[in-house]
Amino acid sequence: MNEIISVAGGVCAAAGFKATGVAAGIKKAGKDMAMLFCEVPCAVAGTFTSNIVKAAPVLWDMHIVNEVKKAQVCVMNSGVANACTGEEGMRICAATARAAAAAFGRDGIPVDEKTVLTASTGVIGRQVPIDKIEEGISIMVPILDETGKGGDLAAQAIMTTDTVPKQAAVSFMLDGRKVTVGGMSKGSGMIHPNMCTMLAFITTDAAIDQTLLQKALSDSVKDSYNMISVDGDTSTNDTCLLLASGLAGNEPIVSEDARYDLFKSALDQVNKTLARKMAADGEGASALIEMKVTGASSVEEAKTIAKSVIGSSLVKTAVAGHDANWGRILCAMGYSGAQFDPQKVDLYFDSAAGSLKIIENGVDTGYSEEKATAILSQKEILITADLKQGDCEATAWGCDLTHAYISINADYRS
Amino acid sequence: MNEIISVAGGVCAAAGFKATGVAAGIKKAGKDMAMLFCEVPCAVAGTFTSNIVKAAPVLWDMHIVNEVKKAQVCVMNSGVANACTGEEGMRICAATARAAAAAFGRDGIPVDEKTVLTASTGVIGRQVPIDKIEEGISIMVPILDETGKGGDLAAQAIMTTDTVPKQAAVSFMLDGRKVTVGGMSKGSGMIHPNMCTMLAFITTDAAIDQTLLQKALSDSVKDSYNMISVDGDTSTNDTCLLLASGLAGNEPIVSEDARYDLFKSALDQVNKTLARKMAADGEGASALIEMKVTGASSVEEAKTIAKSVIGSSLVKTAVAGHDANWGRILCAMGYSGAQFDPQKVDLYFDSAAGSLKIIENGVDTGYSEEKATAILSQKEILITADLKQGDCEATAWGCDLTHAYISINADYRS
Repeated sequence: MNEIISVAGGVCAAAGFKATGVAAGIKKAGKDMAMLFCEVPCAVAGTFTSNIVKAAPVLWDMHIVNEVKKAQVCVMNSGVANACTGEEGMRICAATARAAAAAFGRDGIPVDEKTVLTASTGVIGRQVPIDKIEEGISIMVPILDETGKGGDLAAQAIMTTDTVPKQAAVSFMLDGRKVTVGGMSKGSGMIHPNMCTMLAFITTDAAIDQTLLQKALSDSVKDSYNMISVDGDTSTNDTCLLLASGLAGNEPIVSEDARYDLFKSALDQVNKTLARKMAADGEGASALIEMKVTGASSVEEAKTIAKSVIGSSLVKTAVAGHDANWGRILCAMGYSGAQFDPQKVDLYFDSAAGSLKIIENGVDTGYSEEKATAILSQKEILITADLKQGDCEATAWGCDLTHAYISINADYRS
Repeated sequence: MNEIISVAGGVCAAAGFKATGVAAGIKKAGKDMAMLFCEVPCAVAGTFTSNIVKAAPVLWDMHIVNEVKKAQVCVMNSGVANACTGEEGMRICAATARAAAAAFGRDGIPVDEKTVLTASTGVIGRQVPIDKIEEGISIMVPILDETGKGGDLAAQAIMTTDTVPKQAAVSFMLDGRKVTVGGMSKGSGMIHPNMCTMLAFITTDAAIDQTLLQKALSDSVKDSYNMISVDGDTSTNDTCLLLASGLAGNEPIVSEDARYDLFKSALDQVNKTLARKMAADGEGASALIEMKVTGASSVEEAKTIAKSVIGSSLVKTAVAGHDANWGRILCAMGYSGAQFDPQKVDLYFDSAAGSLKIIENGVDTGYSEEKATAILSQKEILITADLKQGDCEATAWGCDLTHAYISINADYRS
């Protein structure tokens, strides 16, 4: 009955949404602008970077989420971040919104420019070429597409150093109506716990009160995007937006009841799927590292330890080398700031190549190095640390650190 | 009069100290054991890793510094860290101390085994081969050397992935007597703010009260070793030991007066020199990054910002690529947790190739990319951020992140 099932698509999976992506000439080559549009103004929720250096689109969207509380369009670009761009950066957000509203107006679709979100990702410090943005908007409005194809194009256009587009969608039944939550995200560098450039756009056709929509999103990001790390750098542009059209036709969700919980579970599933895809596609990554901490006295401690391990450069390079250098894992747990008894820790490695108990009560089990290397040579690796001091747990996602990360970042702007 | 001058040597520069280093077969090749000895029992101070996973030698030395308060010998090994080795690890420290006391006893030199410090650095989780340690001790005691040569050998023997040995020494006059402070350190991976494997051994012939010796060391590490970072990993083994023989013959320093300040300045100079050398020799580093924050409202804020920048993988890879991607610097300042106004920041790059103002009041000055690249292509790069909100400042030292770091760490144990 309350089953949540994965469905095809991304931001266009939910009723009422259209999207597209084009090459507007902002990047040297490839798609670099995307647009998301809903037939009706949507309730909107958002979470944003904790960096005190906030890009102009972050400030622009925070105002819409906190004051306007409605959104109908989002204009995204990759290539330039519109961060550290001073007053001019804010003027460009306003001009973008104005251009979008005008373009829809020309097609006879009334859009209030106050409901136009913007999002940018790319090089910090350069001004966005507003002429190219305006031209891109004019091209996109007529070709907005409600099929999966529109979502695909948008997911491609927001990529920077990403190697694959990232989309996810789920459906469930509520009041006899099918409700869908779908989304897309980008991000593979500057990814770290407190909202990561990381951009994520989630849409739903659920009818839900805006305050609850924001609560669901704020809670959901804590266990999804905020539990991944690629390189420890928290971007100036991190943004996650959630738009709810209400077109599913369910009775509006107006309290934190079982119906809210069901919606929240669906949202979690989309966000965790996207977060995991982002970690797996971390810059230069050859393996996804899933770090699970069990037997903790609190969820917060389990989170702290899990995040410390996936953030460790030495753990990440060891995985890149398929080297079971477990001392680095215990070391990273130890400096995390969380309390535990190192002499009680059991540690396990798991992957498609098998399972192995590496340490028991803090010391080497005498495991087979050969088998450990085989396990660590897979594309997805699960490390589990059992603290044996409580019954709380948490999972964080990261990736290995390879030569490709250096190559990507040592000449990113050239 | 109160001039502090640099002198040759390291741990043997101060009166009374002898040292040596040998190959004891713990590593596959090269020197891997060192010994430091003083003619007389010394007042001893120490600072240790904040990691809750503490290696056995750390626990052993903490007991000596806190309870015994005297030390005459230190036995060091590289290759194996004696961390995560359980009870057996502690028994090996005790056996090492016993073996050293016995070896000196055979030479007619009474040494209390309770005054024998130990220090280890290398792979975590493996047991130290005590037979090799005992043999190494027997070889080293007869060849201890008070000249610079003994210090050189010891500084070489404690190296792991270090590419150069690190020593420093200074002298100053106190009560008409020449007082010397000298030291050696190792460390190029697992280096991060809270005592870094980082091992540092400082000796002095100053006569100084043990409580003040500890205070001087604790304060000094905060502005030296705790201001460097190579990769963000805080080791299980970080140790800094300071031995004072009193053989300079000065009136003992027993209060925090001008004479203490002079000693502290000399100690700072040795520690900062060693710290800078460690950052410059960070694993795989091709450049030293010195990050200076000026115009801060507090020293703590300046430190927080400086450390955040030198810890950023994206800043480090940009320097590796000689790429003036200053947005990453402002981004790392922004997520540091310190408060400042991004719109007021001025940023400068300096090196042997010249000086350049990169941003003013938070935005691009329109600097020459060519000149910026030339500046960033040097071996030592100074980045200065002026926050223009106060008159406090701080400096942190790090290094770039290169392909060599990955190569070193992806197959460290093989």
